This record gives sequence, C-alpha cells and structure tokens, in this order.
Amino acid sequence: MRKLKVIIEYDGTNFHGFQVQPGLRTVQGELEKAIAQLTKTETKIIGAGRTDAGVHALGQVGSFSTASTIPIERFALALNSCLPADLRVRSAEEVAEDFHARFSARWKTYRYIIRTDPKGAVFWRNYALLLPFTLDIGAMQAAAQHLIGTHSFQAFCASGADVRNFVRTVISCRIRMVEANLVIEVTADGFLYHMVRNMVGTLLQVGRGERKAGDIPEILTSQDRNQAGPTAPPQGLYLVEVGY
Amino acid sequence: MRKLKVIIEYDGTNFHGFQVQPGLRTVQGELEKAIAQLTKTETKIIGAGRTDAGVHALGQVGSFSTASTIPIERFALALNSCLPADLRVRSAEEVAEDFHARFSARWKTYRYIIRTDPKGAVFWRNYALLLPFTLDIGAMQAAAQHLIGTHSFQAFCASGADVRNFVRTVISCRIRMVEANLVIEVTADGFLYHMVRNMVGTLLQVGRGERKAGDIPEILTSQDRNQAGPTAPPQGLYLVEVGY
Repeated sequence: MRKLKVIIEYDGTNFHGFQVQPGLRTVQGELEKAIAQLTKTETKIIGAGRTDAGVHALGQVGSFSTASTIPIERFALALNSCLPADLRVRSAEEVAEDFHARFSARWKTYRYIIRTDPKGAVFWRNYALLLPFTLDIGAMQAAAQHLIGTHSFQAFCASGADVRNFVRTVISCRIRMVEANLVIEVTADGFLYHMVRNMVGTLLQVGRGERKAGDIPEILTSQDRNQAGPTAPPQGLYLVEVGY
Repeated sequence: MRKLKVIIEYDGTNFHGFQVQPGLRTVQGELEKAIAQLTKTETKIIGAGRTDAGVHALGQVGSFSTASTIPIERFALALNSCLPADLRVRSAEEVAEDFHARFSARWKTYRYIIRTDPKGAVFWRNYALLLPFTLDIGAMQAAAQHLIGTHSFQAFCASGADVRNFVRTVISCRIRMVEANLVIEVTADGFLYHMVRNMVGTLLQVGRGERKAGDIPEILTSQDRNQAGPTAPPQGLYLVEVGY
C-alpha cells in the first residue's frame, strides 16, 4: 500500500460540501467514486478541511491509501479523466504512511471575496458575496489586528459545534482591495466550524460602521456566539492552501 | 408609449441563447417575462446581438416600447427585482422612438477569453476556452492585422447562414495576455453568424503553429468556410459593448 497526498480544486457551487452524505453530490463522494473507478478498489479519502456546501477550494488536500501501481507522475492526470469538470486534482505525491490530510496540517489559509462593484455581478453571484456598498477598510483592518494571536474563538464558532477546545491561533488576517473585490485572507493553525464566515460577518459590521474595531477584544472575551456578527454566506469562501 | 434602451449583462451558461425559443430558457424570454410582470403588459424586446447558448454578455443592449409610467431612474432596479440572478439590467434610459437595438447599432465589441493556466480551471470552465498550451501570440497578432479592414468574411461565416452580404468592416482586433488569460477583442460594424468564434478558431491554429499569419488574406479571398479554422466553443465569448 502507498499513501498518497493530492491537492484538489473545486467549484463548490454544485456540491453539498466536502463530506460524504448519502444521496447527495459531495466532493469526497465524487473523489472516492473516481479513485474506485481508476484503481478498481473502494478507498476512503480524508480531506484537510470539511468545506460546506457552496464553499470553494483552490488548494484542498486529500490523503488516502492505495494498492494502485499507477506511476505517481501520471496519477493526477489519470484521476482527472474520471472526475467531473468542477473538480480537479492539481497534483499527487507519495507521502509517509502516517501522513493524514487533516491531523498532519500545521496551518490553513482561507480567502473570502466580497464584490463591491455591481458591474459583473452575474459572474460573481456564486463566487463572492455581492455587497455594492462602500466599506471602511481601515476600520476592518484595525479590527482584524485584534483577531490575530491565540484566543478562544468560541464567539466565532457555530453554536452546537462538537468541540471542547475553542483555542486557536490566527497567524495572519489580511484585508485588501484587488480591483473591485475586497479580499479577506486568514491563516490559522486550525479553524472552528463557521469561524471564517463568522469573522467576516463581524468584520463587515465594522466596515459598515455598525460597530467599532475596538469591540473585537470584548467579543473574543465573551466566548458568546451572540456577541459576534452574522455568518457570511458560503459562496465567497475559498480554502486556499494547507501547510504541513 | 416610451421607447426604452437597456444595457444588460448575463451569464450565458444556463441560457439557450438570447432569442426566444418555445419551451427553452432564453435571455429574451426571461426579459419579456420580467417586463410583463413589472408593467402588466406583454412586450417584445429587441436585442443588439443574438448571442448563442453559453455566450455571455457584459453590455448587451435591448430596446422596447412601453406604456409604463415607472420613473426611468427607478426602472433598472425595478426590473432587476423581477429577473433571475444570472441576468441583470445595468441601466435603462429613454430614447427616440425610432431607436432599434439591432438596426441602430454602429459597432459591436466581442471578447474571447482563452485560459492558458490549468490552475483554477474549475472556475473558468464555463467562462473561457481552457487551453493549457503555449501559444505564439506574436504570430496571432500578425494574423489579426490581416483581419482588420473591410472584407467579405464569408469564409468566417457559418455555412447555411441566411445572409446575402458578407462584407463587414473589422475596426480593431486586439490580442493580449491579461494574467493567465489570452484575451482577443474584436470590434466591427457588424458580425456574421459565428464570425468571432471562427476567427478565434483560425487565430488559434496560427498560435499553435498549424498555419501561418500570412494565410489569412488567402482565407478571406477564398470566401470558403472550409478554408478557415474550426468554430471556437461558445463559453469563451462575451458581447462587451454596442455603440450607437
């Protein structure tokens, strides 16, 4: 058996998220179907991040064991020939047998795109949050500074999530305009359920002047989901990169 | 009655082209349904260009007559509230009663996008021709120079098209890289059926070294569709702007 690591991109629009769900089209389901077709063996693939329905990936990572003897340099191409057009394997490499796409990850980067120009909205409707308003980017950047570091992020975690430890380290939180898109990029050693989308929802309140950058430390300290802003919608979110 | 001119954008992916076809979802059909809903009157809308299934528009123009008394500055917003998310009216203005979106047009600009980077292919599959090859852009630009001017474009017109006069004037044909996209932009006083897509198919043969830039004058002179290259697929094509 060989352990393989694959880097995957997908357009999340027509997937019910990453994780297998009976009767629904998922990224994991399509990948496992393609691997089975290619290698003639049922295989379970582990994903670094279990993205929700509508969330996209530029650099999702998957790991799985296989007895297949297909040369590694031909594996991605062969697998792509079995995959639908909205899901591609960008690369495949052989890794140590204890490699685990999720547990071995040291950090992940997510990107959130907010489209501020109504022009071209039809092309961004599934790939960004459409928000044709002026946002105070300086205030959002100041708020983002308060999110960086090691904190309990319970206030930014979907309530009812099945975790005990809410402490995570946000390594960076960068906000910038790229043409008419406001791009928020967050790197952390791990993310709680809906953490990025709840951070974005809160940062947008700051950007629209509904609350101040200085409110963030209090929100963190409260450890209360009700103190943070609403959950930003999924279509603006991208899993960009996973570091090992 | 007032005559209105609207500028329209749409993601052509889920439309069977602009023109109404019984039982199929078309841009014209959705627009006429929305105008009827808004103004309570059946109305026929004329489009500047009858784009095919899968072809997009950033600046399609439509014209129609209406007895509606909705103030013109509120018309686009009101109409958008009746339209699906992949079809938007960017602006509406009142025009002279003899204005006709198609017959009054003096020029149109189409853009064709070729994506040369396999990275991000899942996000471009409906919005560009995916072609992860190196193209000789200099040769393509040289070929494009031969297309500029007043010629019979019969060799670039879909055979069987119901026209008598194949003479058109190509005002400009610009080819450039925008990041990983090769962008071909053509402005002409009018276009024959599939003319841009056949021009792109021919330019790509030049870019891949399958024929020379200097072949273009002969292709034009032949007036024979079989001498030009294949029809490039629809999803790379955008109607960008119409001039009056």
